[in-house]
Amino acid sequence: MAGIANKMASNQKQIAISEFFEKNKHFLGFDSLPRSIITAVKEAVDNSLDACEEARILPDIIIKISKIDTKKDILELVSEDNGPGIPQKSIEKVFGQLLFGSRFHAIRQSRGQQGIGITGVVMYSQLTTGKPTHVLSKIASEPTAISVKIGLDTRKNKAVKSEQDRIIWENEDLSLKEHGVRVTTRMKAKYQRGRQSVFQYLRMTSIVNPHAEITFIDPDGERFHWPRVTERLPRKVDAIKPHPHGIELGQLQRMCRESKDSRLTVFLRQNFSGVSMRAAKELCEASELAISMKPKSMKPDDVRALLEAFQGERMVNKKPIKLLSPPTNCLSPIEEMLIKKGLSKTIDSKFIATMTRAPTVSHGNPFQVEVGLIFGEGMAADKHVEILRFANRVPLMYQQGGCLLTKAIESVDWRQYGLEQAGGKGVPKGPAAILVHLASTNVQFTSEAKEALSDNEFVFEETRKAMLEMGRGLRKHLEKKKKMAKTREKFELINDILPAIAEKSASILERPVPDLAGSITKIMSAVICNETTAWNKETKQTDVSITLFNYTSRSRSYSLLVNWPEKAGAEMVGNERGGRKEAMGIWGWKIETLEPGEKAVLEYSLSNLEKGDWTETEVFFRGSQDVIGATKLDEKMLDEIRNQEKILEQTEGSDDSENDVTNSYEPGVVEGDSGQTTLFGGEN
Amino acid sequence: MAGIANKMASNQKQIAISEFFEKNKHFLGFDSLPRSIITAVKEAVDNSLDACEEARILPDIIIKISKIDTKKDILELVSEDNGPGIPQKSIEKVFGQLLFGSRFHAIRQSRGQQGIGITGVVMYSQLTTGKPTHVLSKIASEPTAISVKIGLDTRKNKAVKSEQDRIIWENEDLSLKEHGVRVTTRMKAKYQRGRQSVFQYLRMTSIVNPHAEITFIDPDGERFHWPRVTERLPRKVDAIKPHPHGIELGQLQRMCRESKDSRLTVFLRQNFSGVSMRAAKELCEASELAISMKPKSMKPDDVRALLEAFQGERMVNKKPIKLLSPPTNCLSPIEEMLIKKGLSKTIDSKFIATMTRAPTVSHGNPFQVEVGLIFGEGMAADKHVEILRFANRVPLMYQQGGCLLTKAIESVDWRQYGLEQAGGKGVPKGPAAILVHLASTNVQFTSEAKEALSDNEFVFEETRKAMLEMGRGLRKHLEKKKKMAKTREKFELINDILPAIAEKSASILERPVPDLAGSITKIMSAVICNETTAWNKETKQTDVSITLFNYTSRSRSYSLLVNWPEKAGAEMVGNERGGRKEAMGIWGWKIETLEPGEKAVLEYSLSNLEKGDWTETEVFFRGSQDVIGATKLDEKMLDEIRNQEKILEQTEGSDDSENDVTNSYEPGVVEGDSGQTTLFGGEN
Repeated sequence: MAGIANKMASNQKQIAISEFFEKNKHFLGFDSLPRSIITAVKEAVDNSLDACEEARILPDIIIKISKIDTKKDILELVSEDNGPGIPQKSIEKVFGQLLFGSRFHAIRQSRGQQGIGITGVVMYSQLTTGKPTHVLSKIASEPTAISVKIGLDTRKNKAVKSEQDRIIWENEDLSLKEHGVRVTTRMKAKYQRGRQSVFQYLRMTSIVNPHAEITFIDPDGERFHWPRVTERLPRKVDAIKPHPHGIELGQLQRMCRESKDSRLTVFLRQNFSGVSMRAAKELCEASELAISMKPKSMKPDDVRALLEAFQGERMVNKKPIKLLSPPTNCLSPIEEMLIKKGLSKTIDSKFIATMTRAPTVSHGNPFQVEVGLIFGEGMAADKHVEILRFANRVPLMYQQGGCLLTKAIESVDWRQYGLEQAGGKGVPKGPAAILVHLASTNVQFTSEAKEALSDNEFVFEETRKAMLEMGRGLRKHLEKKKKMAKTREKFELINDILPAIAEKSASILERPVPDLAGSITKIMSAVICNETTAWNKETKQTDVSITLFNYTSRSRSYSLLVNWPEKAGAEMVGNERGGRKEAMGIWGWKIETLEPGEKAVLEYSLSNLEKGDWTETEVFFRGSQDVIGATKLDEKMLDEIRNQEKILEQTEGSDDSENDVTNSYEPGVVEGDSGQTTLFGGEN
Repeated sequence: MAGIANKMASNQKQIAISEFFEKNKHFLGFDSLPRSIITAVKEAVDNSLDACEEARILPDIIIKISKIDTKKDILELVSEDNGPGIPQKSIEKVFGQLLFGSRFHAIRQSRGQQGIGITGVVMYSQLTTGKPTHVLSKIASEPTAISVKIGLDTRKNKAVKSEQDRIIWENEDLSLKEHGVRVTTRMKAKYQRGRQSVFQYLRMTSIVNPHAEITFIDPDGERFHWPRVTERLPRKVDAIKPHPHGIELGQLQRMCRESKDSRLTVFLRQNFSGVSMRAAKELCEASELAISMKPKSMKPDDVRALLEAFQGERMVNKKPIKLLSPPTNCLSPIEEMLIKKGLSKTIDSKFIATMTRAPTVSHGNPFQVEVGLIFGEGMAADKHVEILRFANRVPLMYQQGGCLLTKAIESVDWRQYGLEQAGGKGVPKGPAAILVHLASTNVQFTSEAKEALSDNEFVFEETRKAMLEMGRGLRKHLEKKKKMAKTREKFELINDILPAIAEKSASILERPVPDLAGSITKIMSAVICNETTAWNKETKQTDVSITLFNYTSRSRSYSLLVNWPEKAGAEMVGNERGGRKEAMGIWGWKIETLEPGEKAVLEYSLSNLEKGDWTETEVFFRGSQDVIGATKLDEKMLDEIRNQEKILEQTEGSDDSENDVTNSYEPGVVEGDSGQTTLFGGEN
């Protein structure tokens, strides 16, 4: 017995991070041959898109995969972009050193964060083929490109460089490549087609990155091309400082210890987001610390007191200190219109609803959830709905079952929205596809391979709420469709059969055919609204026509309102009835009084849109009597939309406003509970 | 544009592994407050069990959780063991440095592998409370214990030590503690009860570690105790060398580069498992390398050639080089008997089947799958069956959906085995629980939190096969039950009603009651076997009685065979009919010829078992006519069992046998396709 402890201890040693990931390469997404090539493409494309976005370059990405040795499953991957390029001295660290990167400490939305991805590819390539990875990089300020081969000394987590040279890098058309990176690497991997494939990965990437031009040449030499759909780069995201609500004690201790600030208020204002001058002073007061205190000299109890003030446990005048929400310009959502465009491109179907929730905060990290739903008869009705998951514009293709986003979908009782679902739990069945995108400054994955999101109650709730809201849209659509179908049936019956009967009767009785308008009105006894939204090939506009029939025996008076894609940049033209803007994306008209049997027609067109962008207009009414085919306006909802707009304007206006009345939130309470509720759907 | 690349590069820096895991603490299992305390307990208990197993100590573990601050969710965890202790100089590295450990490079079954777990606990504790962790450690060779507080400098991945002292460590009864470790740490966490709880974790741990004594004191002061069920420590596992079939090119390059061996054959024999002297020579011949070559001097092409010989692509005499399977003494399965014991303790039910597959190999890593199934009317019939997952004797409690073991269960069509399952896919429904345990030298988890297994086709197939085999056992059990019930009904009918009719008729006719034996035989027209297996309280033995009735009109002649838990150490006593061993766990008797209406009775008892260990005996027969209540012996199966035994004996006998005829396997072909097929079930 004696000595066993020492003997056991003598076997212990430090493991290099590279050794760790070489052994656990499946953590990085290299767990099977078909997945390995997808992972490699993913890491390369993520890097290219991130670099282009940061340098404000519209990305042009080419991916080429070739079979080198079919028997041994060796593939070659070439990935080229037109990004800013990587300076010579950084190349070996970016490609040959794990946990080296620029985005780890920055709080903003980005695809890569950990400085693992592409080095993991170089490592896997070396492990399975024994070969280094060839990197070609050109930056704009230098006339030539660097060509170098990078391997990894896994025992030391250091790059091994060879064959470094400067070369002239010419494009295919022999013009000089201005800037960009090309990575060529060989690895043990299997190229496959299907739902989990490089092709599908790139296709899904193009859906959520419509600003990117992506070309793919597969091992058979077949060329696929996903063109750029918009010239607009994703919103520029700024790195923000940590928010006091997301800080842990250990972290705050370290920040204080490492601080060079001379005063506590300066420290608070300069190192945190959401802390106004007034709030900084109040935080000092609440934690009973002098505003002139040096953070470096704070004792453990001082730090603890400050954290308690952050968390609202220490107050001033019995009130927690009001802090601004963190700015949300660190996020870059895809936005409804583009989601819709992407979805309708992927799956050809009847009904599309999308929903972008307002940005919100979990543990001081801003995040935002977007969802989309496609429903239609073109899809298999007896299978589970397809789930398309994305995080920070990156498609997630594996571990669907273990992902928070899937769990949020599974938690909704979809039966009430017209989908089949055993026991009201689990992935529903039906002719539908559900898209969900999380934009966040700190996406918490279950592992380094970044394929599934880890549990987080705030993200879960936001996603669930978005699903519920979208589900209500689906139900409303299905109900409306049913009601309209019934009315139409009745309408056709009356318009076809009544006149036929009248004619027949008249001819038998040898009397003139009677005027049926009055009778029809009596039988219908309803106000009916009929809406068509259609793409006009010639004018390249979307024409909207709304007709309101008064098929009742009394005169009727209404206002009509419609939703329209104002936020997406559409313009309303040919709107001869005028009307007025009621809120962002909501237009309204007062309609003249309609006598029994009368109708009113509303017409306008939408320009600045493309085909398929807008396929159904939702009509709301103000008035006492129900209108079939339109929804009674909820004035509260309208107010909410108006308020949302106001808040957004204020938030975007100033980062450090003293006006923290509308924009403050209580510690622990998550803001932005109600997202923008505009829902749009269409029947193609 | 110019300059952006340099600007972007200037923001890049190296991230310490500790910073990485502090930010990604959810990778380590700290993603929610309720889970954090379970993770902390898990890491502490894993370490204690591993240390005790290695030092061959029967573990005594005490876990105590107290609430320190309910409002702020601060808990204190105390974990104490009687393990070998940790020497003073190692404590700071074990607890304060990530990726430091002894098991990372060793190829053998162990709970911990990566040197992350307990340091992660120290880090999480510091992050959320700002406090270090208190460690008390005593090794047998020193009179006093070390007491020290350990924190973490996350920027450097180094321990921060404070208040180090030597103290006398007394047990509760004031006797001197001989050796062991006590860890006291505070953290932000929530104590919960239910399916995912510390209680449940410890309970499941005790099922698969029956040699451990575990005590748990919950925050209310309630004391739970899981006593030691067996004094037998798990089989001692030896670290093995890597097997040539599991080596990647990059790895082999590094091994050659770092080798100090003077000859290639020495290098091959000393650094790999499964390479006999003959195989080493043949590998050299196949790769056209001199046996006297120095591995260090090998060129890239030489290494590649050697790898091709490993993989069977280079041959000698057109045959791939035969390599021995890696030894399986690096694995420590739980074994059928203990699984059954554990299962029946957890869930009180009617039928239990267990199945331990033979060890097999994936990518050079030995592994072994064990499964258990409980079925009975005590459980809810309309819910999904409960799944109990384990890897290397550690319960897996999270991410069930994303786990390979769950996927293997879902891939089986359970409808054919009597369970409900929509579409023949997914987790089945019914009154059942399924246990599955993977023992492996290299368990591939989906993340550092070690809660779900990553995809691996070999492990998947093995698990699936085990499930299918177990499923067949369930079906057989249900069918047999049905058949026996029918026969019994007929039997009772005939035995009750026929005599009654005979008696009645005789009394009416005033004649003597006729002898009915002949008639009954004619009506039954079957040979029936009736088996009872019952625990005898007085003798503490399991009594087995088998009766064979010949209810046919001809004389019959059979051999009967039974399964019995020979491997688990049972002994057969009072077996007056003798008979002989037919294979491991299979005993057989030649039965005398039975004339019509005759019966034979077989009786014996099993000693060395506990109540509940063995509750049903399966009876097989050799003979031409079917026997109701017994299974016709499959001679092939018997041969297979015999062969398995032979192989096991050889593998265990010598590590480097030249006799590689029965034990060799082709590259790429996985051996041990058929596990030990002994299935036992019981009706309690």
